[in-house]
Amino acid sequence: MKSHTKYLWFNTRKRREYINVTGEVENAVRESGIQEGMVLVSAMHITAGVYVNDDEQGIIHDIDEMLEKLAPYGKAYRHHQTGEDNGDAHLKSLLVHHQVIIPVTGGRLDFGPWQQVYYAEFDGQRKKRVVIKVMGE
Amino acid sequence: MKSHTKYLWFNTRKRREYINVTGEVENAVRESGIQEGMVLVSAMHITAGVYVNDDEQGIIHDIDEMLEKLAPYGKAYRHHQTGEDNGDAHLKSLLVHHQVIIPVTGGRLDFGPWQQVYYAEFDGQRKKRVVIKVMGE
Amino acid sequence: MKSHTKYLWFNTRKRREYINVTGEVENAVRESGIQEGMVLVSAMHITAGVYVNDDEQGIIHDIDEMLEKLAPYGKAYRHHQTGEDNGDAHLKSLLVHHQVIIPVTGGRLDFGPWQQVYYAEFDGQRKKRVVIKVMGE
Repeated sequence: MKSHTKYLWFNTRKRREYINVTGEVENAVRESGIQEGMVLVSAMHITAGVYVNDDEQGIIHDIDEMLEKLAPYGKAYRHHQTGEDNGDAHLKSLLVHHQVIIPVTGGRLDFGPWQQVYYAEFDGQRKKRVVIKVMGE
Repeated sequence: MKSHTKYLWFNTRKRREYINVTGEVENAVRESGIQEGMVLVSAMHITAGVYVNDDEQGIIHDIDEMLEKLAPYGKAYRHHQTGEDNGDAHLKSLLVHHQVIIPVTGGRLDFGPWQQVYYAEFDGQRKKRVVIKVMGE
Repeated sequence: MKSHTKYLWFNTRKRREYINVTGEVENAVRESGIQEGMVLVSAMHITAGVYVNDDEQGIIHDIDEMLEKLAPYGKAYRHHQTGEDNGDAHLKSLLVHHQVIIPVTGGRLDFGPWQQVYYAEFDGQRKKRVVIKVMGE
């Protein structure tokens, strides 16, 4: 069994951003030399998410709008009694999830034609990190 | 380390359907000969989900109703400016998630008594695919 | 490839409880002797969840409040026609997800500074179980 670990850093200009990281994940798989296995892509923060969906600006807008409706920014969350203002980002992270695991087959992401990996920043404008771990043979 | 990869095809009669694939996942594990490991079940489309829950028609109705409330079909999603009409299906996929990973112990799915794997189709009536990947020893 | 499997039992005092299991997951990784790999933490019930987020009582309150808004307890769910009263717990489990998979690097959970693993009980006051499976080398 082989494994390969890699970290991506982000520092978004806006509070919320959705960043396509598919190329980076493909690079990590290539570097690992792993042909058959799985690759885990996981946010290292509790105010960010990782998901697989479409590389299309309209749906990204729709995702953001739905998340903002389900967990609005600026609400008087109990969490804010600690002095934080990012309760919405924790809840958005929970709904989107902080991680995906993708099959690797023949040395490539075993994806359908439209699948792309996204990093979803919900509380940006500071350094944040994602871990990519490939495991297999 | 061994691995085994298998694809399931779906072409649902209705736009939204919930299909129990537990037997297919168990078959893939059996075929792999893997005793200890994990099995990944992942939709290859961005308008479908995979989840673990109950094989009971009432709760399937309730799941569908909740998803339809959170991401209704027919809303004027920004995504529809591309000509598509399936914005709701992308959002439902995001909420349900497109993948599960299940422990394999003693050659079997290490599940509790009521756990079943479901494929959730949110934009059917055409060919769609799921990948099953078993990994272990 | 090595693997190590362990079960945690819960029997909560309240119907809904959120329990930090990070220490137990770290113990399982240590016991496994695995340095590089992944650990899967998965509820064995369809009315419970596992997630990664903050060890802070305010955000736990906010999570519970959001889930109760999206899938309220006591609603006339179709599932209740079977005699059950826990439709909300199934839906909360679906939204939170029943499982997480965490990278293991250098024999430790490859987590950011604030990440903690939680067991989310949505229909407690009886014996429930979580499986932890570590896999790697």
